[in-house]
Amino acid sequence: MRLSRFFLPILRETPKEAEIVSHRLMLRAGMIRQQSAGIYSWLPLGKIVLSKIEQIVREEQNRSGAIELLMPTIQSAELWRESGRYDAYGKEMLRIEDRHEREMLYGPTNEEMVTDIFRSAVRSYRDLPLNLYHIQWKFRDEVRPRFGVMRGREFLMKDAYSFDIDRERAREAYNRMFVAYLRTFDRLGLKAIPMRADTGPIGGDLSHEFIILASTGESAVFCSKDILDLPIPPDDVDFRGDLSPIVTAWTTPYAATDEMHDAAAFEALPEDKRVSARGIEVGHIFYFGTKYSGPMGANVAGPDGVEQPVHMGSYGIGVSRLMGAIIEASHDEAGIIWPESVAPFAVGLINLKTGDQKTDSVCDGLYERLTNAGVAVLFDDVDGRAGAKFATMDLIGLPWQLVVGPKGLERGEVELKRRATGERLTLSVDAAVNRLMAG
Amino acid sequence: MRLSRFFLPILRETPKEAEIVSHRLMLRAGMIRQQSAGIYSWLPLGKIVLSKIEQIVREEQNRSGAIELLMPTIQSAELWRESGRYDAYGKEMLRIEDRHEREMLYGPTNEEMVTDIFRSAVRSYRDLPLNLYHIQWKFRDEVRPRFGVMRGREFLMKDAYSFDIDRERAREAYNRMFVAYLRTFDRLGLKAIPMRADTGPIGGDLSHEFIILASTGESAVFCSKDILDLPIPPDDVDFRGDLSPIVTAWTTPYAATDEMHDAAAFEALPEDKRVSARGIEVGHIFYFGTKYSGPMGANVAGPDGVEQPVHMGSYGIGVSRLMGAIIEASHDEAGIIWPESVAPFAVGLINLKTGDQKTDSVCDGLYERLTNAGVAVLFDDVDGRAGAKFATMDLIGLPWQLVVGPKGLERGEVELKRRATGERLTLSVDAAVNRLMAG
Repeated sequence: MRLSRFFLPILRETPKEAEIVSHRLMLRAGMIRQQSAGIYSWLPLGKIVLSKIEQIVREEQNRSGAIELLMPTIQSAELWRESGRYDAYGKEMLRIEDRHEREMLYGPTNEEMVTDIFRSAVRSYRDLPLNLYHIQWKFRDEVRPRFGVMRGREFLMKDAYSFDIDRERAREAYNRMFVAYLRTFDRLGLKAIPMRADTGPIGGDLSHEFIILASTGESAVFCSKDILDLPIPPDDVDFRGDLSPIVTAWTTPYAATDEMHDAAAFEALPEDKRVSARGIEVGHIFYFGTKYSGPMGANVAGPDGVEQPVHMGSYGIGVSRLMGAIIEASHDEAGIIWPESVAPFAVGLINLKTGDQKTDSVCDGLYERLTNAGVAVLFDDVDGRAGAKFATMDLIGLPWQLVVGPKGLERGEVELKRRATGERLTLSVDAAVNRLMAG
Repeated sequence: MRLSRFFLPILRETPKEAEIVSHRLMLRAGMIRQQSAGIYSWLPLGKIVLSKIEQIVREEQNRSGAIELLMPTIQSAELWRESGRYDAYGKEMLRIEDRHEREMLYGPTNEEMVTDIFRSAVRSYRDLPLNLYHIQWKFRDEVRPRFGVMRGREFLMKDAYSFDIDRERAREAYNRMFVAYLRTFDRLGLKAIPMRADTGPIGGDLSHEFIILASTGESAVFCSKDILDLPIPPDDVDFRGDLSPIVTAWTTPYAATDEMHDAAAFEALPEDKRVSARGIEVGHIFYFGTKYSGPMGANVAGPDGVEQPVHMGSYGIGVSRLMGAIIEASHDEAGIIWPESVAPFAVGLINLKTGDQKTDSVCDGLYERLTNAGVAVLFDDVDGRAGAKFATMDLIGLPWQLVVGPKGLERGEVELKRRATGERLTLSVDAAVNRLMAG
């Protein structure tokens, strides 16, 4: 993409309203624009990253055997009356009356609707296990939205719902999501730690939060150093096999959020194993049995022909929140440092002297070669000062910067800079292309 | 995808509430489920097709130079007061009050918000032309939603907005979208005809609807036979060149909807050129100049330094509606006939005798070979009657059916059926694989 044809409204000044670094950087880098309190537009650079995060989440859900559908944002209050949550939910639910004065709401979550879909279609244990997920916008009318996309009102969430004949099978479904989450966050460049959690308003008796460590995290977390070194399940992990050894390995070392912290157990660890840090919740999984299927009559016949309420779990990932979390975990003074898997472009190509025939021509050639080779390039082809160009590229955090100017070209050289380390290489044009095509 | 692990709730009976064929077929094929009047869940089969349509629309927007962003669904009433449309819009706008009693709404369209984004960032003609689009859910509170996804309340729309320094440049932007639309609908397997249209509540003085011909179409349309044979612009059409010859070629032959019909002009055509048919609107493009930029103060400085309101156009495609339109245009008595570009799977593999060792093993092998070769297969591996299996495959309309049973296998043969024509080939297993891998 040529910058001259892109829409990248960089802010030179730090916006006053942003309290945390990810919010500041996303505003400055022209990734988002606030439209109302807690409601954002995703500008082109932000939209690319959002889609990349979404796609990684989707691929790992699919790999685990979950099936994608898409439920609407607007729901009927009737469904929520069946579960008893319509009155219980409180002011975070955005309630709406349509032109016929029917009570509707903007879905904050989808347990009721997916249970309704399930009960309309599934009658027998033979159709199980089933895990249905969607990636859809949700609305929670937070009394004080803040921290940018970390605690917005309109946000993108992946929510999956598992259906099984009994508690034991439901536990297997839970394990599949547990493993899928480990893989998902790892692919996003994050170190996420599952921590036993309170089940809260969704209910149930088994729940884990996935927490990433970031010094700016919202809550205190405590864990054993051992958990930080566990291997991530590989991409050919057998989701139809027994995953409990993996889950056991990841749930044995001490790990707890503030709320669930057991100081005595933590202090029983050798001192050099105690990690006390700040964390950000990026995923949450629950087993809640028949809490919704019971009152909503989502029954299936078992092998004995007897109908019984189906056992359910739900599994959320805050897709839009993840963008903020990734930035909290990966930035420096100059700006964002994107993990390669979600970087909006792999390379920022900087023309230091637009209008100079040779520089323009080398840049055009580089842009074409890299683009044709499938490397995503943002090409700064705009007339401007070198300092501002470097600052913008550092701010938006692409993994590589390829800098082309007339002085280097006199020696046949261009400069390649790795954003994460600041490492610089002076290379011939061909060597730079080869280096970038190697990934 | 193995059917035993998929979620495909086929309805054996024709739903009474569905008045038109696409609605009936989408319900029967387990593609959608109504959650409230005019509000649908997209079940897994429907979600796959929806994503494929969305992706083709996106690719052609990108090819034309439009830039993707994503605006939120919930908007502030304030913005709509600036344009004067908040009071004018009427009951189709879903109006919402949040917990702080602020007036909000579920966006039915985005002229105001995108103009706000533009004015916050762009000051000079040097940043033009610019075309920003998004693919986002919209809500229009239709008094009587009907025809399934063809006239739903919550629907997915691609809306693009162009910004140019003057009327002439805005016309070039209009032409780019015109050409992108021709390509988009062609790739979706549709014959779409641009017809000069009324500008209606969006305003402006230049507008075309893109109408596809379908015997079940919502309105009468009239055109010259010549327009049906015009070539579609190729994939390397130069969007930075002069597109007016293409637009002229497509706007010269007579073509008009009922509303704009000029019977005298139509009857002046030779009788064998007169096409009188039914049509479905699938896209609509507008040039409306400074209608929003004027009142909202979206000004840019021209080459002379003088500030002036930017010239705008807007360009919509009904992404979710297109699924209904494609089915209206492509089905038979037995069910849907998907164009290959949007088919949820390329092949339906039918095991006629699950449990028979040889049949199971050949089917498993075929499934693996085709899947590894990148061919999307829905594998009916479920125990069931042959007749019901055939009926389901015909209903869901995959381009190819690959039928494997013990009798054929005795002779080393499987059967390949092309859904669109009913043509059947009896082939060896290898020959069938080769045929399917050839596309």
